Amino acid sequence: MIELYTASTPNGWKASVALEEMAIPYEVHALNLAEGEQKQPDYLSICPNGRIPAIVDTDNDRFAVFETGAIMIYLAEKSGQFLPTDSKGRSQVIQWLMFQMGGIGPMMGQANVFYRYFPETIQPAIDRYQNEVKRLFGVLDTHLQDREFLAGNYSIADMANWCWAHTYKWSGVAIDDFPHLTRWLDAIAARPAVERGIAVPGRIEVDKKEFVEGARKLLV
Amino acid sequence: MIELYTASTPNGWKASVALEEMAIPYEVHALNLAEGEQKQPDYLSICPNGRIPAIVDTDNDRFAVFETGAIMIYLAEKSGQFLPTDSKGRSQVIQWLMFQMGGIGPMMGQANVFYRYFPETIQPAIDRYQNEVKRLFGVLDTHLQDREFLAGNYSIADMANWCWAHTYKWSGVAIDDFPHLTRWLDAIAARPAVERGIAVPGRIEVDKKEFVEGARKLLV
Repeated sequence: MIELYTASTPNGWKASVALEEMAIPYEVHALNLAEGEQKQPDYLSICPNGRIPAIVDTDNDRFAVFETGAIMIYLAEKSGQFLPTDSKGRSQVIQWLMFQMGGIGPMMGQANVFYRYFPETIQPAIDRYQNEVKRLFGVLDTHLQDREFLAGNYSIADMANWCWAHTYKWSGVAIDDFPHLTRWLDAIAARPAVERGIAVPGRIEVDKKEFVEGARKLLV
Repeated sequence: MIELYTASTPNGWKASVALEEMAIPYEVHALNLAEGEQKQPDYLSICPNGRIPAIVDTDNDRFAVFETGAIMIYLAEKSGQFLPTDSKGRSQVIQWLMFQMGGIGPMMGQANVFYRYFPETIQPAIDRYQNEVKRLFGVLDTHLQDREFLAGNYSIADMANWCWAHTYKWSGVAIDDFPHLTRWLDAIAARPAVERGIAVPGRIEVDKKEFVEGARKLLV
């Protein structure tokens, strides 16, 4: 059994989508980020970075894993799914997982901050991050031009990039110029496990004002 | 033999430090970033993201690897060093490697951009990223309070975080409040392989004005 500590964010969904795709039994513990539950000592003993998500594997001496990229690799290796075992296939999946960890995730995150949450409107910062997101979407689009998925069969690399990229509207970026990215986004959105995964721990706040105010409290 | 395509940046050093620590034979190909050599078609066939570093393994059908986190895991698995093979030890190293990939690297990178390169001085953006770097340094410092290294023995997680964290002055952040981080930074700096690794492909530009102007050209 996996204990999943999470909230409704792209990083949270990376863990819940992976758990659903792998059909691993898990128990959801929703954290209220605006209340700072991710900064409480109990949670910091699981996740020293004070961010969501994190998991505890009750079948492995309550082993704790934080950082979504590490959670996905741990679950893939535990279940023997969505990460090839041959050296090349495995590395290709890890390369595109890292592309999300170091590129798509942080840059869409910064675009969201300056486009949605920052107390002041700083247009050069909005432009910088939206342009970088478009550049990264272009890399995905070109790569997907002659491939169904990012690295061989559907893998944790697709799940990781999809969980962020499908929120492009939230970053204020359009995907009209990226037909291959669009095709890939639609194909993954139609997977039942993905639909179930992004409904964890609950539908995202429909009250945008309240959601934005909550997110503002989280800004450093 | 590994072909290493790189430049004098923290990400470039992650690859060269790992190669030096693992004593893997490699050949350096220095790219001139300000001239856009990382955007040329030949290089994009190795690294679709158009960033440095990337490697080609001439002993493995010229297999190409991009994204520094993936390069480090590939080299560690190839050489059987600096990444444990047991499930828990291995995951702990990957967790702290991901902490660098998704946190230390992108946030120090943004601090550098707004503190050093951005055409305008935008104080709220400088503050945001310097504060986030300090928060992340605090996480490292607390974690290193009762540990010599980040995850068991010295590993690719230490190399990855060190290659960024030791450039704290470039981000305009002080480490006076982080004694455990300081001790760890000093210990790793004294390793001969690390000294050799950060001298690849050449000492960083001493002419700061020219370096900053070159870096500005790279801004999206």
